[in-house]
Amino acid sequence: MTTTTANHTTRIVLAERPHGAPTDQTFRTETAELPALADGQLLVRNRYISLDPYMRGRMSAAKSYATPTPVGDVLPAETVAEVVESRDPDFKPGQLVATHGGWQSAAVVPGKYSRPVSDNGQPESTALGVLGMPGFTAYSGMAEIGRIQAGETLVVAAAAGPVGSAVGQLARAAGARAVGIAGGPEKCAYLVDELGFDAAVDHRSESFAEELKAACPEGIDVYWENVGGKVLQAVLPLLNLYGRMPVCGMVAQYNATGAPEGPDRLPDFMRTVLNQSLTVRGFIQTEFRAKHWDNFQRDMAGLVADGRMKYREDIVDGLENAPSAFAGLLEGRNFGKLLIRV
Amino acid sequence: MTTTTANHTTRIVLAERPHGAPTDQTFRTETAELPALADGQLLVRNRYISLDPYMRGRMSAAKSYATPTPVGDVLPAETVAEVVESRDPDFKPGQLVATHGGWQSAAVVPGKYSRPVSDNGQPESTALGVLGMPGFTAYSGMAEIGRIQAGETLVVAAAAGPVGSAVGQLARAAGARAVGIAGGPEKCAYLVDELGFDAAVDHRSESFAEELKAACPEGIDVYWENVGGKVLQAVLPLLNLYGRMPVCGMVAQYNATGAPEGPDRLPDFMRTVLNQSLTVRGFIQTEFRAKHWDNFQRDMAGLVADGRMKYREDIVDGLENAPSAFAGLLEGRNFGKLLIRV
Repeated sequence: MTTTTANHTTRIVLAERPHGAPTDQTFRTETAELPALADGQLLVRNRYISLDPYMRGRMSAAKSYATPTPVGDVLPAETVAEVVESRDPDFKPGQLVATHGGWQSAAVVPGKYSRPVSDNGQPESTALGVLGMPGFTAYSGMAEIGRIQAGETLVVAAAAGPVGSAVGQLARAAGARAVGIAGGPEKCAYLVDELGFDAAVDHRSESFAEELKAACPEGIDVYWENVGGKVLQAVLPLLNLYGRMPVCGMVAQYNATGAPEGPDRLPDFMRTVLNQSLTVRGFIQTEFRAKHWDNFQRDMAGLVADGRMKYREDIVDGLENAPSAFAGLLEGRNFGKLLIRV
Repeated sequence: MTTTTANHTTRIVLAERPHGAPTDQTFRTETAELPALADGQLLVRNRYISLDPYMRGRMSAAKSYATPTPVGDVLPAETVAEVVESRDPDFKPGQLVATHGGWQSAAVVPGKYSRPVSDNGQPESTALGVLGMPGFTAYSGMAEIGRIQAGETLVVAAAAGPVGSAVGQLARAAGARAVGIAGGPEKCAYLVDELGFDAAVDHRSESFAEELKAACPEGIDVYWENVGGKVLQAVLPLLNLYGRMPVCGMVAQYNATGAPEGPDRLPDFMRTVLNQSLTVRGFIQTEFRAKHWDNFQRDMAGLVADGRMKYREDIVDGLENAPSAFAGLLEGRNFGKLLIRV
C-alpha cells in the first residue's frame, strides 16, 4: 500500500471535514503522480511522519491558528525523509531532512522549509520529537512564558506526551517541583519512575482535585495548559500570586461540536486572573523560532545526552494506520511521541 | 453628623457582610474616640474620601486581592486629608496628605503610608483620581501590559470611569485608536466629544456586539478589562494576533452570588487565547509602584496640564451619603471619579 516509485506517492487526503471526532469518512487513501521538480525543490521519501494534536484544527474550516487544509488535499505533517532528488544546492540525495512531507510516502517539498537532521548521536526520529517541534514548544514556552524558578511548583497536563514530558523535565532541571497529570496508572508511574517527576496525578481519578491539591502543598506557580477542560478547573484555586500559564494546546476540546454546558466558568477564571495577578499567554512555537532555535538544539541535545531529558516514542508501522492512530491521539490512547513509520 | 472634635471621628463601619449588592444593613454610622498618637502617626481630618469598586471585595470574606475588612471595622478608603497633629517629622499640621483615612471624618494614620499632596497646580481632589490610584492604575497597566502602539486599536470598558477614561486618553496620546464602552448616550457622547475617543459604544444597546465590531474595523489589539461579563464576550472574536488584555477589575461581577448560568464560555475563551497568541494579565497597581510612580507623577501631570488628559469628578457632599453613592458606583450610576466631600 505504501510502495512508491520515484515519482509517485501514496497519500492520505482529507475526504470531508469531521464533525466531532474524525471517522473513516474523514480520510481517503489515493495514489498520485508527483510533479517534476522546480528550482529550490526536493523530492523526498518519508521515513517517519509526525502525528500531533494541532492537526485536528487543520481538518476544520473554523478559525484556528492552523490554516485549514482544503478538502481533497493531502494532510499536512512534519516528516523525517530521505532526499531522493534535489534542485536545491543546500541538499543532496541520500541526506536525511526534517521537512513538511505530509501524510504520504513521498513528496515534493521546498528546500527552504527543510532542515538537515542534526548529527547529534540521537535516532533520526527525535527530530520530530524531543529535538524537534514538540521539544522546542516546551523549551521556548518555558523560556518566554513559564520562566520556572528553583523552588517553584509546575503542573503540566498531558504530562506523558512529548511536550508535557519535556516541560516537566525542564522544570526539574531548573530545580523546581514538577507535578504531572496523565490518564491511567501506567502513565503516572512512568512520570515518576522513569522521568523523575516529583508527583503524578491521574485525571481519571474521582478524587482528582483533592489529589492534585495534595501534590502541590505550596500551590502552583506555573500551570502548563495543553489540554483544557476539567484539569484547569482543579488547578485554578491552587494558583499562586504572579502565576504563569503558557497555553499551547486544547486537545480536550478539539473534537467539541458546540458550547459546553454551564455553569459559566469564565467569570471565576477571570476573577482568579485578577486576584492572583496571573499571566495567561497563548503561543505557537513558530513565534519563538528565530530567538531560541539554536539555543534549543544545543541545550536540549545536552540534556538528552546526559540523561536529564528522557523521551518515549510510540511508533506505528504503516501509513495506512495513520487515521486510527490519529483518532487515538485525540483520546490519549498513545504513550509517547506518536510517529508513523512509513 | 460629620462634626468632629479634635480626637473624635464620625465613621461608617461594616455592620454585616453583604450577600449580593450592599444594602442599608451593610453599613452602620457611629461616633468614636480616636486613640492618642504614637510615634510615626498623624491625626488627620478627611476632606475627600475616594469610593472605588475594589472596596466591594473588602466587604466579603471570600478570597480576593483585597484583605477582607473585619465586621465592625471602619471601611477602608484612600482620602485627601489635612494634618491636625503629627508625630512623624516628615509631616506638619496644616499640610495636605493623601492617606488611608477610611470612611470617616477623622483618623489616626501612619505617616509612612501617607504622601504629601503634590503642588502641581491641580485641585487637591485629583490626588484621589487622575493623579492618584486610578490614574496610576491606567498608566502602569498600559506601560507594563497594554503597551499600546501607534496605529493599534484599544477598547476599554467602563470608559467614562476614572481608570477607563485615563486608559483611552493614554492610547490616544500614543497615536492609537481608542474605543470606549459605557452605559447610556450621555457617557458615550462625553467620551467622543470631551475626551477625544475615536468611538464610543453603549453596552446597553441591543446591537452592542455589532456596533463594537463596526467601531473596530481593524480588530482589537488591546482590550482593557475592568468590567467582566458580556463585554468580554463581544470583544473575543475581534481580538488580533498578539493582543494584550490587562485585567484590573471585574466590577460587573462584584455583587454576584453564585456561578453564572451556562453555556460555559471558558473553553471558547481559552481557544481564543491560543489561536491569537493573547496575553491576559491580571494586576493590582501596587505591583508597579516602585518602578513607575515617579514617572507617572511627571507624565500624567504634564498630560493634564497640556489638556491631553481630561478628567471628571462626581463629588457627593456628606459622609452620610457614602453608602448610597457606593451602591450607585457598582451599578454605574456615577459619572466621573466618585468622591465624598466630608
